[in-house]
Amino acid sequence: MSFLDDFRTMSTFGATPGGGVERQAASAADGETRRWFGGWLAEQGFRVEVDAIGNIFGLLELVPGAPYVLVGSHLDSQPLAGRFDGAYGVLAGAHAARSVRDRAAAEGATPRFNVAVVDWFNEEGSRFKPSMMGSAVHIGRLPLETALATTDPRGVSVADALDAIGGRGEFTGLDVSAYAEIHVEQGRELEATGTTIGLVASTWTAQKLEVVVTGEQAHTGAAPMADRRDALFGAAKLIVAVRELIDGFEVEQLHTAVSEMYLDPNSPVALAREVRMLVDIRSPRQDLLETAVARLRTTIGSIAAEARVEIDIVDVVEWSSGPFLEAGVLLAGEEAARLGYSHRRSATVAGHDATNLKEVVPTVMLFVPSVDGISHNEREFTSDDDLLAGLDVLQSVLYRLCAGELETERTS
Amino acid sequence: MSFLDDFRTMSTFGATPGGGVERQAASAADGETRRWFGGWLAEQGFRVEVDAIGNIFGLLELVPGAPYVLVGSHLDSQPLAGRFDGAYGVLAGAHAARSVRDRAAAEGATPRFNVAVVDWFNEEGSRFKPSMMGSAVHIGRLPLETALATTDPRGVSVADALDAIGGRGEFTGLDVSAYAEIHVEQGRELEATGTTIGLVASTWTAQKLEVVVTGEQAHTGAAPMADRRDALFGAAKLIVAVRELIDGFEVEQLHTAVSEMYLDPNSPVALAREVRMLVDIRSPRQDLLETAVARLRTTIGSIAAEARVEIDIVDVVEWSSGPFLEAGVLLAGEEAARLGYSHRRSATVAGHDATNLKEVVPTVMLFVPSVDGISHNEREFTSDDDLLAGLDVLQSVLYRLCAGELETERTS
Repeated sequence: MSFLDDFRTMSTFGATPGGGVERQAASAADGETRRWFGGWLAEQGFRVEVDAIGNIFGLLELVPGAPYVLVGSHLDSQPLAGRFDGAYGVLAGAHAARSVRDRAAAEGATPRFNVAVVDWFNEEGSRFKPSMMGSAVHIGRLPLETALATTDPRGVSVADALDAIGGRGEFTGLDVSAYAEIHVEQGRELEATGTTIGLVASTWTAQKLEVVVTGEQAHTGAAPMADRRDALFGAAKLIVAVRELIDGFEVEQLHTAVSEMYLDPNSPVALAREVRMLVDIRSPRQDLLETAVARLRTTIGSIAAEARVEIDIVDVVEWSSGPFLEAGVLLAGEEAARLGYSHRRSATVAGHDATNLKEVVPTVMLFVPSVDGISHNEREFTSDDDLLAGLDVLQSVLYRLCAGELETERTS
Repeated sequence: MSFLDDFRTMSTFGATPGGGVERQAASAADGETRRWFGGWLAEQGFRVEVDAIGNIFGLLELVPGAPYVLVGSHLDSQPLAGRFDGAYGVLAGAHAARSVRDRAAAEGATPRFNVAVVDWFNEEGSRFKPSMMGSAVHIGRLPLETALATTDPRGVSVADALDAIGGRGEFTGLDVSAYAEIHVEQGRELEATGTTIGLVASTWTAQKLEVVVTGEQAHTGAAPMADRRDALFGAAKLIVAVRELIDGFEVEQLHTAVSEMYLDPNSPVALAREVRMLVDIRSPRQDLLETAVARLRTTIGSIAAEARVEIDIVDVVEWSSGPFLEAGVLLAGEEAARLGYSHRRSATVAGHDATNLKEVVPTVMLFVPSVDGISHNEREFTSDDDLLAGLDVLQSVLYRLCAGELETERTS
């Protein structure tokens, strides 16, 4: 089957009426997609292994005992999401890994490294926080037990959710020499500049602030207005302030959002005594991010006083991520040029599993265009031509990584 | 057992660590309270009946075949609520009904009417909307089938929830000649004026607007700020605007709130595509309420444009309630004066089952003070002296209603 045929088949799992997919981590639809993918791998001669956090590996051992170049992304999705985000990178990685094997055999070449494709568990983080969970456990940034004990809003743990789809294994000890990932851009830069391939050179820095607004429960109608300490009113002022933070910065130098919140009690007749929410602030520059967060902290003090509530930042998760390996950016650029695709350096605003992997091994990340930059939405779209161009470059990059390029970077 | 002993016992059902109760409609704790109350009634010689929407009636037939004067309130509560709201009125009603029987027997008098106490199902409306459900079905304002089919946020219907606590019966056809209810004030006026008994003469008018904010789902980090159509940002601006509506009105002439909202999807990494919420606006004057709602509608238009979202008011429930029966206010004032309690005319901001009943029968409603006006909160408090004073006045009022006073009002 061709890549596009496989992609169409894969897009039927968890398909939504609006042309997207919904397969949140360890949901039934995620389980179906994983099973189909495992079957595909086995059929193509991959050895299929699953680790304790539910990452699926498809191994092709070309050089007995050698380390592996890993390529992949994630099969899970946001609620009502597009069919490209993550899934494209996993399937392209699988096809690219297969092509490395076939090309080495055809050329009678012996690669320096073996090759494996991976589906990282729970990259999205919509059901279980944090996002990029499977790759974080893999690189040792997140303890396995912490990840397994994490619960979704209904109280189901990762361990139980994975067991329900038969999603946990015992695979360990993969020696990884390099990592490659391809993903849809989730922005408009490639499209706006008429570019086919993005060479990801840097990651925006992000802070995710967990905020608790504490007021006092009272009757929505009867309580005198002057007495109220309405947590939702405080939270609403904060959401507006988070959005208005961007007014003090150059265009596209700061992204801010609140998209998740929980009210207690969520009653039509009782003012909220507590609102919990996640504030997401990102910038391409660490100094701008810090300025923005400092300004927000000052604003929080004023809002708390005006709304007569307490506002506490109870947790801060920061991604202060360095650049991608320059030698990898150059290598990918060479392959794109050689194959005749327009290309440019890109920055990723979103986090990716590659953001985790690049902390431990030489990592190359590629983008293909997203029409209108639409992402985390059923209307997400990338053309067949761009999907195939991305696969073409990924295959060539992966072949060179398997030949041992960037190897010196590993030990430096 | 004395009233205060009974009240202490009753307050143990669904008791919370903060000194309050949590017994939302048809919850296990509501079921326990109802069973205890039914047992108390039976022990005291009441005939216990339950109707199809779960209202519990305790009947004392003093004059075979005559209509009944009904007295009561509700046993259900908000989440983490006070122990007085509703429960006080039911227990005081039961004690008052018993006292009417005993006093008539002691005096060898034959009342004009029989007497019955009632626990109205789901007055609070926190789990199942609308509030005042049981009394609304009783007066024919809400169809029984609509009420039974109403679901809570988890999808459980009123019918199933009532069945789970054995809470549905078949009682019908009670001929009611008058209604009385006593309740804690949920405001500060009685306390501020040093008054023991409030004679409820009017109800604030309220509009409850169900609002849907529609944006477009997108990546919280990656989506360019200029492209965003964030439903939660629009909703937050609206919540702030709802609160600031009061700035254009005299103090305590307008109450506004938003306390319930649902986000879709409620994900840390996807901007909300839809937010649904309930806007609650109340005023003692119909004209002011209408002015406020008209201003809000204009503001909604501006917010929708600024936030690039759609904002639709999909439902409006209005309580445009007339005054309480003047003859009832005077009668209650006479009894308070005769018994030596300070008293004054009150307005209720909150809705009560009496607000429904007064549409169909002569109705008297009394208030006792709430310390600091705290309501829908575990810290709600009314002193024992005030509880007993209220019971004292309620008994006397009920006796006069059973003697046939206000009867002429019934047919006028």
